[in-house]
Amino acid sequence: MANGFVQANLVVLRKEWAFDFLLFCQRNPKPCPVLDVTDPGSPHPARVAPTADLRTDVPKYRIYRNGELVEETTDLLSHWQDDFVAFLLGCSFTFEKALLDAGIPVRHLEEGKNVPMYRTTILCHKAGRFEGPMVVSMRPIPARDVARAVQVTARFPAAHGAPVHIGALEAIGIQDLSRPDFGDPITIREGEIPVFWACGVTPQAVAMAAKLDLMITHAPGHMFITDLRGEDLVGEGLK
Amino acid sequence: MANGFVQANLVVLRKEWAFDFLLFCQRNPKPCPVLDVTDPGSPHPARVAPTADLRTDVPKYRIYRNGELVEETTDLLSHWQDDFVAFLLGCSFTFEKALLDAGIPVRHLEEGKNVPMYRTTILCHKAGRFEGPMVVSMRPIPARDVARAVQVTARFPAAHGAPVHIGALEAIGIQDLSRPDFGDPITIREGEIPVFWACGVTPQAVAMAAKLDLMITHAPGHMFITDLRGEDLVGEGLK
Repeated sequence: MANGFVQANLVVLRKEWAFDFLLFCQRNPKPCPVLDVTDPGSPHPARVAPTADLRTDVPKYRIYRNGELVEETTDLLSHWQDDFVAFLLGCSFTFEKALLDAGIPVRHLEEGKNVPMYRTTILCHKAGRFEGPMVVSMRPIPARDVARAVQVTARFPAAHGAPVHIGALEAIGIQDLSRPDFGDPITIREGEIPVFWACGVTPQAVAMAAKLDLMITHAPGHMFITDLRGEDLVGEGLK
Repeated sequence: MANGFVQANLVVLRKEWAFDFLLFCQRNPKPCPVLDVTDPGSPHPARVAPTADLRTDVPKYRIYRNGELVEETTDLLSHWQDDFVAFLLGCSFTFEKALLDAGIPVRHLEEGKNVPMYRTTILCHKAGRFEGPMVVSMRPIPARDVARAVQVTARFPAAHGAPVHIGALEAIGIQDLSRPDFGDPITIREGEIPVFWACGVTPQAVAMAAKLDLMITHAPGHMFITDLRGEDLVGEGLK
């Protein structure tokens, strides 16, 4: 969808929790790269898509109450409140395109599967009631391409950036790559190294665990598409 | 002082204003690179100097009420309140050391002066009651070294990063380099280009203009010294 445009994960919270959540993102920029935060009550992401409306322009939403999924919906027109703050967080689609452009294979795309994701023993830096383990995604990379995969993805700090871990899965508490906590298992070939990137599921898991009275996210695979191109995120990110 | 260690600008606000100020920093990362934000009420910067106490470990503080400087003090022991949030923001000392290490001259240091700073016509992205123009610092760089100065400073996004503007001062509303708005005028030699970096005075000026009932900053030249080395900030910044 909209190939080349930056996609973003959505988290909507009440203003009451917005400072702690923004602080959580600031303290954990690898899993939680902030692309935009709306003014309280405004559904318009002024930095990344000023004419968009976050009440209608995400294809599917999930509504959580006290940490439980209670509803899926295709718009938020009847749900939106004056104290809502929407967070748009960078997503791995951006760096996967960069890997492909660099001729580095992305296995789960080849196999038509979801990327495998794992809970790790890496603890995020806590902020207020937001805390929990970092979730990582794994892509097997041919050993000769690992250094280049680091360089290519490091260009996109606003889309999780460089890997957080390479090989040695036990060191981050992963026992069995064939049994991911989220997503699908994928093939790892001889001579490939498992490379782990911080994953955007982390902030959603952390926000769910905080059991806020109300939280809204995009539904998996139904991200928000911004007006930005991947190259707009290179280096220091948005101007 | 403590050569090689990262110094930081301090801004202390009530929790009531902390979300808007953090959002302002998130929207304006070049002038406001966040190194650490304390938990409300805590004087300990857990990320950059966990054993430090921000009530005593800055050599001089300035206290502002309703945007007016009312007091200078050498500790905050009697001022500290349960709802204070302290922001530590990256400072140009880090990238100036990198310039010197790269053999690029830093004129105001050679001349024993303060760096010249200028209000520009570049407007920061507003957040709540925080808004205003970007203040930039200027360093004259020999034309042959400008590209390298960009590369060297771009490595430190947490210390203002790459320049925001090079040459063509009129385009950002600067009329006369010999009359800076803050700091001292310095010599610009034949064949040197004025290079402008986003300046840490920006968030202080913006916070003063917001006329909060109470705000505390470090006194000019009396920054907080963190436990970090410059190289800890390279690339994506703190882990």
